[in-house]
Amino acid sequence: MAKAVFYHAGCPVCVSAEQDLLTLIPEREVDVVHLGSDRSKIETAEKAGVRSVPALVLPNGNVLHINFGASIADLK
Amino acid sequence: MAKAVFYHAGCPVCVSAEQDLLTLIPEREVDVVHLGSDRSKIETAEKAGVRSVPALVLPNGNVLHINFGASIADLK
Repeated sequence: MAKAVFYHAGCPVCVSAEQDLLTLIPEREVDVVHLGSDRSKIETAEKAGVRSVPALVLPNGNVLHINFGASIADLK
Repeated sequence: MAKAVFYHAGCPVCVSAEQDLLTLIPEREVDVVHLGSDRSKIETAEKAGVRSVPALVLPNGNVLHINFGASIADLK
């Protein structure tokens, strides 16, 4: 099965959400991408429908925006 | 361990988020509460910090607001 991808940018909101979700979602089910450190992934995230981080892109393509850390536009 | 609680109100945004999250989070880790059908839980949710649904309240007390379905105020 394809993995979910958790996109974040290292801000406190993101880090807190990441820690929370990763206690619930088995690690093998999710990849974590730090858009602040890995800027080449910003375009991929955007194409997947990510509008703000933290966000979780599901294997079925749905995007769950969690709380609100930063908009994708602010990361560019 | 305490379970997480997923609060929703049956709206399409909620139902979609619920289905997505429950494919990732093992069922034994999360209770699902429908605030539209179980209105006595609205106050509990509010005290836990839920401002809009769908939301996931973690065992550590943190609240993850997911996308935006409806504000708690609109459910009253």
